[in-house]
Amino acid sequence: MMKRLYLHLDSKRGTEGTYRWLKDEVEELGEALHGEDKEALEEEFADVIAWLASLANITNIDMENAALNKYDNKCPKCRQLPCQCMF
Amino acid sequence: MMKRLYLHLDSKRGTEGTYRWLKDEVEELGEALHGEDKEALEEEFADVIAWLASLANITNIDMENAALNKYDNKCPKCRQLPCQCMF
Repeated sequence: MMKRLYLHLDSKRGTEGTYRWLKDEVEELGEALHGEDKEALEEEFADVIAWLASLANITNIDMENAALNKYDNKCPKCRQLPCQCMF
Repeated sequence: MMKRLYLHLDSKRGTEGTYRWLKDEVEELGEALHGEDKEALEEEFADVIAWLASLANITNIDMENAALNKYDNKCPKCRQLPCQCMF
């Protein structure tokens, strides 16, 4: 969906600019965590995942594959579900 | 899946600590963007979405709902698909 919506803009903006937007959105998420507004918090989560997807699109990463390759119903460190790591 | 894997650890660590991890992973993603290692880049995307999901889980946000509420096959600003905003 993010490709259909924004690939033309994301491609023009490029990797560096898109990464800067992602960082800004992560900051805004941090601020929303301190507030009481659940709807605002939800919107910030939406923005972070949206910009992450934009960045994935222009760097040719399939985010779903990436996530499932690393976290495939077991912890990548201890290989257990649930994770048994002590950190 | 992240709930099943990590909720016990995420809950114990709490919101602030989990947010700090997310920020660290976003930094690592930024570093991987400058490298040539596609597999490493993929892993960093996986880590960012994983920590974002961990943070969503302990703040009771449904990330899929959040994303689809805001970006529902149209740009939240111009309401078009593809987005027609000029930024």
